[in-house]
Amino acid sequence: MSRNICVVQDFLNDRHKEQIRKAAEAAGFSVRFFTSQEQEDAVAYLQECEVLYARWPEVLRAAPKTLQWYCCSLAGVDIYCSDPTLFANPDCMLTNSNVYGVTIAEHTVMVTLMLLRRMPEYEDAVRRRHWPEQLPIRSIRDGSFTILGTGDIGRNVADRLRGMGARSITGVSRSGRADNAFDRVFPIEQLDEVLPQAGFLILALPGTAETFHILDRRRLALLPQGAYVVNVGRGTAIQQDAIIDALNSGALAGAALDVMVPEPLPAEDPLWGAKNLILTPHVSGNMTLGYTCDRNVDLFCEDLANYAAGRPLKALVDRSRGY
Amino acid sequence: MSRNICVVQDFLNDRHKEQIRKAAEAAGFSVRFFTSQEQEDAVAYLQECEVLYARWPEVLRAAPKTLQWYCCSLAGVDIYCSDPTLFANPDCMLTNSNVYGVTIAEHTVMVTLMLLRRMPEYEDAVRRRHWPEQLPIRSIRDGSFTILGTGDIGRNVADRLRGMGARSITGVSRSGRADNAFDRVFPIEQLDEVLPQAGFLILALPGTAETFHILDRRRLALLPQGAYVVNVGRGTAIQQDAIIDALNSGALAGAALDVMVPEPLPAEDPLWGAKNLILTPHVSGNMTLGYTCDRNVDLFCEDLANYAAGRPLKALVDRSRGY
Repeated sequence: MSRNICVVQDFLNDRHKEQIRKAAEAAGFSVRFFTSQEQEDAVAYLQECEVLYARWPEVLRAAPKTLQWYCCSLAGVDIYCSDPTLFANPDCMLTNSNVYGVTIAEHTVMVTLMLLRRMPEYEDAVRRRHWPEQLPIRSIRDGSFTILGTGDIGRNVADRLRGMGARSITGVSRSGRADNAFDRVFPIEQLDEVLPQAGFLILALPGTAETFHILDRRRLALLPQGAYVVNVGRGTAIQQDAIIDALNSGALAGAALDVMVPEPLPAEDPLWGAKNLILTPHVSGNMTLGYTCDRNVDLFCEDLANYAAGRPLKALVDRSRGY
Repeated sequence: MSRNICVVQDFLNDRHKEQIRKAAEAAGFSVRFFTSQEQEDAVAYLQECEVLYARWPEVLRAAPKTLQWYCCSLAGVDIYCSDPTLFANPDCMLTNSNVYGVTIAEHTVMVTLMLLRRMPEYEDAVRRRHWPEQLPIRSIRDGSFTILGTGDIGRNVADRLRGMGARSITGVSRSGRADNAFDRVFPIEQLDEVLPQAGFLILALPGTAETFHILDRRRLALLPQGAYVVNVGRGTAIQQDAIIDALNSGALAGAALDVMVPEPLPAEDPLWGAKNLILTPHVSGNMTLGYTCDRNVDLFCEDLANYAAGRPLKALVDRSRGY
């Protein structure tokens, strides 16, 4: 069987395609490119391929038993880990693309400032053409922040908060391993002890069995009165009815959720109407930024060289662990 | 005459008062504190004072001919420079408080990200409980920014944009003097040559005769199609009917105005309804942040020592120049 790569992506420009073509050639592969609009042709070609670089589950589901490596251009691959029927070849390797740290961190800085500076309240006044008195606000400078998840996103967020003068940045991770981006990192087992000090909590966690409802009603109640919560990881990390209650009762001063359950959120969902909530429709990891796209292609090409040489893949996902 | 200081401020805590009391004592002065609610008592005491630390023009207007120094706790002192009748003593020194750079820079980063990430459009969709497709967005990382005004605010903005990976930061100032915070600084005489490259323009200028309508209809038309404008200085810097037209016609992609003419803005003003405008009610220099207040008191105490020793005042304003 010839060694073929099937690429199904909408974000590639000519420079990206040329870069992939050269990397494929160097690795002894042929490559063909399709957009999501050309799925039928893509699936036909895919039958002769051992490598797929795409992002849509239905494309993977159509892959043959001979597919050896699926490179997903997304960072969060929870759906691929929770549904083994997607892989005709159970031993097919899965890699993800941890390239969204910068754009998600910019989103996080934006909503952090919007919450601390009480933009939802000001925006509400301005919509009514009302000129309000100044409200007491807070600042990133001299502030304290707790970040759940110390990966690509968490570190990029920490770097930016630090650059703006944050006084204290606490990380919480599975391992609790020290990391320069944070003043201290606690293991997830100590989460209950961390939360009572977490006046500003940012969640940047993958969607796994371990992170499901990690911020449930009990843990939300451990946060200090008037705390803020930002979620840019996966909606499953938060017990949604509980955070709605915490916002509407005033126990939380505010929240910014870019991820939720389900997505898209149905028009009748009570989350839309929660108090002091900045709701965004899963846009923090936007794929229209040049450097995000460039880095995505870079990572694929790097791992393609690794794959061809029989070396371990850098972005390999442990499908049982979920990231 | 005894040497007395009258302080009329609402933001001082006990620690601030103790700090001022000690500085006054060291300088050979007595000091009394009033809030804006105690103006009658303040004005009575003010008649025996040579120094006033306050922020309300009506308090200054009640000061005697013997007042030697008015320390204003605001940064923008345009009203004090344009109305000489406020000073009974025409030789009274005026100082301002350039301590708002940090909080205004945080505001500027927030609205810059909101514009680049198209938050006004997303917020509009979310208000209608509509889950939109992802829009093409832009980023501070790798972006180019032009800042009119290279003072305390401009430099703090530049530092934060740099920290988030901006590729190019151009300053424009009266002198055009080079400054580490900027990749290059042009003198204001070259503004017409700078504007056609200014895809993201930030105004942080004092309100003076020179800056009045510096961004008028002709200059707005020099900006590239789809440019963004942020104003955190004084509303008088922009010809307001012209920017409304530029927003509504789509010539500008968006703007964020924290200052405007007049303030408060009347309910019937067309500015409220301009397209892709983030309007905030002059809140960027909010006085509720600890470090802003601390620094304000520090500067007053420093200059009090200078005043008592007969040294020049650090924050002295040239009333004919306006800053």
